[in-house]
Amino acid sequence: MSIRVLAIGGSLRQGSYNNLLLKQAQRQAPQGVSIEIADLSDVPLYNGDVQAQGFPASVLRIAEQAAQADAFLIATPEYNYSIPGVLKNAIDWLSRVPGAPFQGKPAAIASASMGGMGGSRAQYHLRQVLVFLDVHPLNKPELFISAAHDKFAADGELTDAASREGLDGLLTALVAHTRRLRASDAVAEAA
Amino acid sequence: MSIRVLAIGGSLRQGSYNNLLLKQAQRQAPQGVSIEIADLSDVPLYNGDVQAQGFPASVLRIAEQAAQADAFLIATPEYNYSIPGVLKNAIDWLSRVPGAPFQGKPAAIASASMGGMGGSRAQYHLRQVLVFLDVHPLNKPELFISAAHDKFAADGELTDAASREGLDGLLTALVAHTRRLRASDAVAEAA
Amino acid sequence: MSIRVLAIGGSLRQGSYNNLLLKQAQRQAPQGVSIEIADLSDVPLYNGDVQAQGFPASVLRIAEQAAQADAFLIATPEYNYSIPGVLKNAIDWLSRVPGAPFQGKPAAIASASMGGMGGSRAQYHLRQVLVFLDVHPLNKPELFISAAHDKFAADGELTDAASREGLDGLLTALVAHTRRLRASDAVAEAA
Amino acid sequence: MSIRVLAIGGSLRQGSYNNLLLKQAQRQAPQGVSIEIADLSDVPLYNGDVQAQGFPASVLRIAEQAAQADAFLIATPEYNYSIPGVLKNAIDWLSRVPGAPFQGKPAAIASASMGGMGGSRAQYHLRQVLVFLDVHPLNKPELFISAAHDKFAADGELTDAASREGLDGLLTALVAHTRRLRASDAVAEAA
Repeated sequence: MSIRVLAIGGSLRQGSYNNLLLKQAQRQAPQGVSIEIADLSDVPLYNGDVQAQGFPASVLRIAEQAAQADAFLIATPEYNYSIPGVLKNAIDWLSRVPGAPFQGKPAAIASASMGGMGGSRAQYHLRQVLVFLDVHPLNKPELFISAAHDKFAADGELTDAASREGLDGLLTALVAHTRRLRASDAVAEAA
Repeated sequence: MSIRVLAIGGSLRQGSYNNLLLKQAQRQAPQGVSIEIADLSDVPLYNGDVQAQGFPASVLRIAEQAAQADAFLIATPEYNYSIPGVLKNAIDWLSRVPGAPFQGKPAAIASASMGGMGGSRAQYHLRQVLVFLDVHPLNKPELFISAAHDKFAADGELTDAASREGLDGLLTALVAHTRRLRASDAVAEAA
Repeated sequence: MSIRVLAIGGSLRQGSYNNLLLKQAQRQAPQGVSIEIADLSDVPLYNGDVQAQGFPASVLRIAEQAAQADAFLIATPEYNYSIPGVLKNAIDWLSRVPGAPFQGKPAAIASASMGGMGGSRAQYHLRQVLVFLDVHPLNKPELFISAAHDKFAADGELTDAASREGLDGLLTALVAHTRRLRASDAVAEAA
Repeated sequence: MSIRVLAIGGSLRQGSYNNLLLKQAQRQAPQGVSIEIADLSDVPLYNGDVQAQGFPASVLRIAEQAAQADAFLIATPEYNYSIPGVLKNAIDWLSRVPGAPFQGKPAAIASASMGGMGGSRAQYHLRQVLVFLDVHPLNKPELFISAAHDKFAADGELTDAASREGLDGLLTALVAHTRRLRASDAVAEAA
């Protein structure tokens, strides 16, 4: 029984530690888990007048990826003590696409930052957003990678052992949470 | 398959709308659901020096009720734009009792207030606390009863039809969420 | 002694109630107060790689307006229980422009929404962002215009008397707070 | 022109790092600044029925100290990702005492903890509470003392040089903010 994870990053910068973390997650993906990384770079600024003309192709593309996914992995920096506008803007579009592609699905949250708090302020704001989207984030583990510049190698690999273990733990818990919800849905359907 | 719910209120005032709401929940409890109301009135102020001498009997009593419960229903007013100290203080004790009686269990959150926002600021702070406790709060429905003085009768009954429906919806969703998690645990154990 | 206010809206939609509220603020501006409305529509998605090539003209234009301003008025909808990505994205750019054009200045916060909570969840997240920007938001009054569709006329005028008074109170308090901080700066300079 | 600071701690434990931090603040108090530490240990659980019989003596005592104070220094641990119930409970009482002894006054916020984030989650919740109380917290500096067990000596002195400097910076900024607001009040009265 395979699990499809859509990975969403909060930064558009190529060398962003959060993007590196998503690629690292692909390398550390548990058996049977495929991780696809969403591309937010061509999502326009949200505008209700534009939406009235139809959703942009980029938004529909990501919404379709979300609809196909069993679970989400979100890695985001913290900007100005909150969620990056880029990530929030994508969510503002996606939340309006008919079909509610996020609804009822589990998510794992991570952040990497150069500062000492590892992006925690962004994560708690994001959790409030997920209440509205009806996503079920893992409570534990939480993954905060602080001093990220010391933990990734020049080629983008996560070399810090504790961080690698943290990422393994996060992915393992996401798989367990996804299987848990799926099993109960199967029971419910059989009933 | 019965479900035991421990109901926890955020106010010690006898006539508190949130306490009335918990009693109303007992009256509206779905078939097979029993709702017990915790008594926080004899919980002392948290003090690590006191804890070092042993947990107070009141704390152990509520912890045991929590351990026996399958799910939680929390109804709390909002004081000073956050969780009442009384409720937070009880949580500060309970979170330290060995055995983690809250861990992995679902919760429904409600609030009643005289103001227009129905206690929402307390609810979002409470959700952050529940991340630490590893409790799984329902995302939906959220229950905010504003202008509570117009919605309860003098005898304490919730007479506002929309609020009663809201409470029914909350309890129904709590039961479904509890069954969902329990079913998957059963599958996991059988596997 | 005149006061220059830069007004910033969280929505790009032409008919947005929050944009109407900013225009209404221009009509209700107290004597000696000028209110300029920032245009966020041509701000690109934040991208550190783009920043490394130089700030976009749109960002520099708004940063210059902010530098000239004595105070800020922010009117924002709530999207997905938080700040709109459009507004946060503009802040993510502006916070990086050298010169810290927001630092130490006062701000008034308002929101209009069709729902019952008037955008409060966005406002509290915004306040956390303002800590980082070192902006001094008014504590009181807070302005939440709920059921906004009943409070604005078809021509965009705010016709609800209580909301007009709320806006007057907000602007008056912003002026007082700005004068308070400016007076003390003058004393400090004279000392 | 002397400044009176009321220091409020979030922990009742004698050896609490946050209590040590308040005593350290007394030792590092700038010239002309006196720091009194509030005693929260005899404040009962908030109960509106009790309030209806009259405020407890402990609450009135602290409210009087707050009324006499020009500014506040709050040092609080983080319990369960939020404000300790003990601190919040005291605030729940004090906010109801007639005369609004906190209103319009500045505050500095600090926290010490053994964990890596230094209590930040408590601080941001506390800031939301201060909006309601109409207190003006410093935006900067924020003081988070993590790994506190390495930074205090056995006799309770803060020995870590960076933390001492952080505390100096916090107190200096609190004095400047207090003087700034007081100067402008004097100008307003003279006008």
